[in-house]
Amino acid sequence: MKKLVLAYSGGLDTSYCLRQLSQEGYAIHAISINTGGFSDTEVIEMEKRAYALGATHFQNIDALDNYYDRIVQYLLYGNVLRNGTYPLSVSAERIIQGMEIIAYAQQIDATAIAHGSTGAGNDQVRFDMIFQILAPDMDIITPIRDQQLSRQQEITYLQKEGFQMSWEKAQYSINKGLWGTSVGGTETLTSDQALPEKAYPSQLIKKDSESLTLHFEKGAPVGINSHFSKPVSIIQALAEIAAPYAIGRDVHVGDTIVGIKGRVGFEAAAPLILIKAHQLLEKHTLSKWQQFQKDQMAQFYGMQLHEGHYLDPVMRDIEAFLQSSQDKVTGQVKVKLHPYRFELEGIVSSHDLMQTQFGSYGEMNKAWSAAEAKGFIKILATSNKIYHTVNKES
Amino acid sequence: MKKLVLAYSGGLDTSYCLRQLSQEGYAIHAISINTGGFSDTEVIEMEKRAYALGATHFQNIDALDNYYDRIVQYLLYGNVLRNGTYPLSVSAERIIQGMEIIAYAQQIDATAIAHGSTGAGNDQVRFDMIFQILAPDMDIITPIRDQQLSRQQEITYLQKEGFQMSWEKAQYSINKGLWGTSVGGTETLTSDQALPEKAYPSQLIKKDSESLTLHFEKGAPVGINSHFSKPVSIIQALAEIAAPYAIGRDVHVGDTIVGIKGRVGFEAAAPLILIKAHQLLEKHTLSKWQQFQKDQMAQFYGMQLHEGHYLDPVMRDIEAFLQSSQDKVTGQVKVKLHPYRFELEGIVSSHDLMQTQFGSYGEMNKAWSAAEAKGFIKILATSNKIYHTVNKES
Amino acid sequence: MKKLVLAYSGGLDTSYCLRQLSQEGYAIHAISINTGGFSDTEVIEMEKRAYALGATHFQNIDALDNYYDRIVQYLLYGNVLRNGTYPLSVSAERIIQGMEIIAYAQQIDATAIAHGSTGAGNDQVRFDMIFQILAPDMDIITPIRDQQLSRQQEITYLQKEGFQMSWEKAQYSINKGLWGTSVGGTETLTSDQALPEKAYPSQLIKKDSESLTLHFEKGAPVGINSHFSKPVSIIQALAEIAAPYAIGRDVHVGDTIVGIKGRVGFEAAAPLILIKAHQLLEKHTLSKWQQFQKDQMAQFYGMQLHEGHYLDPVMRDIEAFLQSSQDKVTGQVKVKLHPYRFELEGIVSSHDLMQTQFGSYGEMNKAWSAAEAKGFIKILATSNKIYHTVNKES
Amino acid sequence: MKKLVLAYSGGLDTSYCLRQLSQEGYAIHAISINTGGFSDTEVIEMEKRAYALGATHFQNIDALDNYYDRIVQYLLYGNVLRNGTYPLSVSAERIIQGMEIIAYAQQIDATAIAHGSTGAGNDQVRFDMIFQILAPDMDIITPIRDQQLSRQQEITYLQKEGFQMSWEKAQYSINKGLWGTSVGGTETLTSDQALPEKAYPSQLIKKDSESLTLHFEKGAPVGINSHFSKPVSIIQALAEIAAPYAIGRDVHVGDTIVGIKGRVGFEAAAPLILIKAHQLLEKHTLSKWQQFQKDQMAQFYGMQLHEGHYLDPVMRDIEAFLQSSQDKVTGQVKVKLHPYRFELEGIVSSHDLMQTQFGSYGEMNKAWSAAEAKGFIKILATSNKIYHTVNKES
Repeated sequence: MKKLVLAYSGGLDTSYCLRQLSQEGYAIHAISINTGGFSDTEVIEMEKRAYALGATHFQNIDALDNYYDRIVQYLLYGNVLRNGTYPLSVSAERIIQGMEIIAYAQQIDATAIAHGSTGAGNDQVRFDMIFQILAPDMDIITPIRDQQLSRQQEITYLQKEGFQMSWEKAQYSINKGLWGTSVGGTETLTSDQALPEKAYPSQLIKKDSESLTLHFEKGAPVGINSHFSKPVSIIQALAEIAAPYAIGRDVHVGDTIVGIKGRVGFEAAAPLILIKAHQLLEKHTLSKWQQFQKDQMAQFYGMQLHEGHYLDPVMRDIEAFLQSSQDKVTGQVKVKLHPYRFELEGIVSSHDLMQTQFGSYGEMNKAWSAAEAKGFIKILATSNKIYHTVNKES
Repeated sequence: MKKLVLAYSGGLDTSYCLRQLSQEGYAIHAISINTGGFSDTEVIEMEKRAYALGATHFQNIDALDNYYDRIVQYLLYGNVLRNGTYPLSVSAERIIQGMEIIAYAQQIDATAIAHGSTGAGNDQVRFDMIFQILAPDMDIITPIRDQQLSRQQEITYLQKEGFQMSWEKAQYSINKGLWGTSVGGTETLTSDQALPEKAYPSQLIKKDSESLTLHFEKGAPVGINSHFSKPVSIIQALAEIAAPYAIGRDVHVGDTIVGIKGRVGFEAAAPLILIKAHQLLEKHTLSKWQQFQKDQMAQFYGMQLHEGHYLDPVMRDIEAFLQSSQDKVTGQVKVKLHPYRFELEGIVSSHDLMQTQFGSYGEMNKAWSAAEAKGFIKILATSNKIYHTVNKES
Repeated sequence: MKKLVLAYSGGLDTSYCLRQLSQEGYAIHAISINTGGFSDTEVIEMEKRAYALGATHFQNIDALDNYYDRIVQYLLYGNVLRNGTYPLSVSAERIIQGMEIIAYAQQIDATAIAHGSTGAGNDQVRFDMIFQILAPDMDIITPIRDQQLSRQQEITYLQKEGFQMSWEKAQYSINKGLWGTSVGGTETLTSDQALPEKAYPSQLIKKDSESLTLHFEKGAPVGINSHFSKPVSIIQALAEIAAPYAIGRDVHVGDTIVGIKGRVGFEAAAPLILIKAHQLLEKHTLSKWQQFQKDQMAQFYGMQLHEGHYLDPVMRDIEAFLQSSQDKVTGQVKVKLHPYRFELEGIVSSHDLMQTQFGSYGEMNKAWSAAEAKGFIKILATSNKIYHTVNKES
Repeated sequence: MKKLVLAYSGGLDTSYCLRQLSQEGYAIHAISINTGGFSDTEVIEMEKRAYALGATHFQNIDALDNYYDRIVQYLLYGNVLRNGTYPLSVSAERIIQGMEIIAYAQQIDATAIAHGSTGAGNDQVRFDMIFQILAPDMDIITPIRDQQLSRQQEITYLQKEGFQMSWEKAQYSINKGLWGTSVGGTETLTSDQALPEKAYPSQLIKKDSESLTLHFEKGAPVGINSHFSKPVSIIQALAEIAAPYAIGRDVHVGDTIVGIKGRVGFEAAAPLILIKAHQLLEKHTLSKWQQFQKDQMAQFYGMQLHEGHYLDPVMRDIEAFLQSSQDKVTGQVKVKLHPYRFELEGIVSSHDLMQTQFGSYGEMNKAWSAAEAKGFIKILATSNKIYHTVNKES
């Protein structure tokens, strides 16, 4: 019996795949990869359902630390916001899920891998690329893409097979993860409609403000209010603190890998607070050119990650660049949470380059004389003075 | 008598310059350049004071349209936010002020130009560079920089000269202009203190929300709620609408031209709303690579402008790039104003590239088959498949 | 009878297509696009053969000026050498050929287009993309790609059809065009073998040296040795002058659009001489940042053109940038031709920014004092002085 | 007696400095830094002269390995050619010389540093920046810059002091180093004159051709013709082999740090051969995006190094990027030397990504079907198809 590993989420699509492929005679390993989306009770539910549908084996792999180490940390070091807005929540998860799945498949000597993506979007590209690149000989089986079934057809099939699970479609499709939660609905299929308040998972509960101190060490989030922990735990703790403020909502409009434009809502309080706080700390601790080049590199990194090119070796080179840039990004950032928004109050760092001993912006300066300033400007102006003198209209 | 043109703002520093230089025997043309900072009554006051202090001639030059045409439009096309935050409010003004001053000086055959900048900051560099590049033979006279006087010394001098004007220092130094208002205070000289609520010129008055439609034509703001006007007027109207919401406040931390880090608060509701709305419209109307390259070009443009290199010919080349990129950036953007923040609701444009006829993100797709999608992914994966196969650890 | 336009070159592949598709009942317009590869006699031969094979209509379109105007000029302005070596000879031709073909097809209301590319390489991508983007409803017919025939199978078919033309394969496959000639052979299928002398179309004849003056106006080549003509003619004349020196040979190793690495020899004397001469003129007439940004933009432009993305609107934006950058690139460049190489001797330009009146490199300087130089350096060093002081290991 | 460290080369300028400063009462440590410019006999001569002129101590520091490790290796990894031509021979040397000098000065607790640069050029900026950044409290003494003496004035002074050394100025000023030799003369002060044959240190001796194999390991040159050694020795050996072919001559036209344009000849056979060979190996072993991003990073790195900003932390980040990119750049490159030029013949590498098993460029392909290729192109064309359909003129 051929071993097949199914990337299994417990939803309708992957449940259909599980049943259908088990009927085709595969020994199915239904694997769920936790990147921050599942609670323990949900995993128990998924497991029960998987075996009921015919899985040979079910396993939930906790990929949170791996996710942080291989991807999220670089998104934070690079302050990556796709199109200036979106922390790449879903894109990044798919990559790590793909890599966990393929590692599992190779370990058990599976000959095939299945996933539940359609042929319309980005996820199929991300999954297939990871699988093809790391395991060129593995069969990739995608029933949903191949059969182009409607939800109703899938439900009918499962009912015929004896599964009377309830599959009512939620009004908004939600994908939750460590680095943000995406929200799709009828509004996001248009260009002009905003998502309503109720579409977002976190609702406004707290109306007063609250100040926080975030601790960073070499760019990584290591503490909140002097309680220290590993980055994944800090991100999760911050998400919980920020949720009652309904912070970090926005709508991403972007280019899919398949060339169409897409629009998706998201809620990503912790990623947005961390990125902005981290970036402020960098403004104090990095040189002008570090910030400039980081930004250019990181935008490219984000685009390639989004498009599934995580395994291109250029990504490793950019990660080396980003890692190097974080050497002095250590210190604390004060953040104030308000309903729907947050404010960066300031930083404290022993690497802070804004130090009054070297002069204060706009104040009288003791570090150089008027004559020295004039010399500086005179020579700085030389090249363009020549240009405009040579090219003077006359 | 030698003609001297003084960049005159009516403040203590340039008043001191005016008096002192007139005593040195110059015929002084005190010129104020309006880039959005002065009201008509303020200009009348400035004029009176200028003549009292000894000016041969006072003139206020309305530079608003020129400011928009030569600089602001490109900052908007490029969505330029220095360090991801600051719309370059002051930097951009200094450039246009310098160019207006030099044009005036050349027109009246002046032999010298004076400005009131100190030797500590950016403004001296911006002014001197413009003057030296466009008029290498003009004398540049900078009493404040040269004499390194304290405010009290300037006041004492003016009092001795018989001027009992009140020069009490405001608690927060404010620089108001079309593209934003900067706010400095004792807090901005530290790294860790936020500006207090009262430091900002606009205070929260409206607590309900309000929706707006902004009209863009080839990237330029041409209307609000179907009332159409020239860009400068739209920016001013939007600023007035947004002010009671206390929108657009932040603190910029950046690298000065002279190498130190500086921190300055600002309030820039209209620039921030316009830039974010414009950028959203671009997400719908530009190709992926247009957005990517625009961003990289525009960040460089912003840095060079900030550092006073406006006259480098590369700036004209980038402007040509940005202008070209705006060809289809026409449409309307719906914006909702809330206290302290705004939300982008969506866009309508006949150039919108997000069109369901070509497939909808995440929905079933009719534009290509599963087999075509697989072919796409297979070939897209080829290069990295080869890389990882050739370089497989074994 | 359905009208079909065939991109026809007279070679075996497109002859096969012509015959086979005419047998399928299409009314075939066999169109050859001259981008510098055909002589008049060759065109007459192609025409005869086309009608013999069953064409309804044959036409040769002279696309040289269009080729220069839409592509070649920008490759020159950008000094585009793919991977530092290759002037993109073939890539650029395919684009303009595709656009001429589609324009012709739309004009005659054809319903289908055919080309002779295989499924292995870049050309299919370039052609198909142009066709699909500009005429999404047009059928694209590609017998060679679809049927995966060998040369021998094609020859056998044509012989059966009664065509006893000689199709002996040349030892080296040559693609000649205005912007260079590519050369493929058994050696270029390896990584380690050089092409032999005889593989190159131009053989060394002249052994003495020869000096030339090239005239540029706003970046465009407008004259040789004070004989002025349109750019296309200058390129052709230069190619003739340089051919006896066997100049401009190299081997390009690059990434194909389909993800594999490819290697191809080329001979491109005129493009290489013009690019290097043009670049030297730019070194004298452009600012440092113009050169830097041009280079970055142009490398991207070359990559996208190479990969067939000519119709992405970002390409128009970059062209606007490049055009703007050429405003002062006017002057003469002296070039010396030697066997297998050339030397740039110098330039003369009224826009030359290297002028002794502003100081000479390495000579004593009158433009600023020692004190001014020290002031310049002191402030230039400030930011990194702060960095290293703050971050001093202790 | 105050200790002063003099960057001493044995030439007229630094001899003048030595004598003059010793007369002012400094205890002078005359330090020469060998970056490839001095032979052992020259050092002995320099030492004798230094003591005669009044040095307290003379020392020659062999900086070759340090030079390679801290700078040259990255110039090679980045294939850095300033303005597409110049391997940054002199710029790079000044940086390492400055760092060696400051390290020595700190070690002996000197209070001052002196160098012989004028106020006109780049070297003063490079030296002063290194000194000020790494030792802000050190006095920097520059007699030549401060006194603006002519050569004749310096000679007269030394003669009066009793030194009858011969100081006849060579017709061409030569600066020799590991990474190339610069050549200045009256011709390089013009824009239009080439340097004559005789100006170059290496003259053509060999007229036949010669093939070489260069061995690289992770980007570093480790062998020639299967003789292995450390990189510095390989560079020196290659320079000796190539010298009789008069390879690697060119003229660099560039922007100085002080804003004027400068022109300088150079001869750099080993750097040019190594850079081009290394780049060819990279074309076979790196991904497309690695090459693209490396290039963009490396051009910036070269510019900053040239302008003396070696100590900006962004340089360390780029070095981390470059280092990472070299992981697979291991293999052999065959090079053929001819009079005045060289030819790259091909490479052999176990990391070569051009492998026929994955398909050969332009050949029939077995890796994917025609249908897969069509699917690839169809989806690749989607975004621009939408753009052109939406924006169709009608």
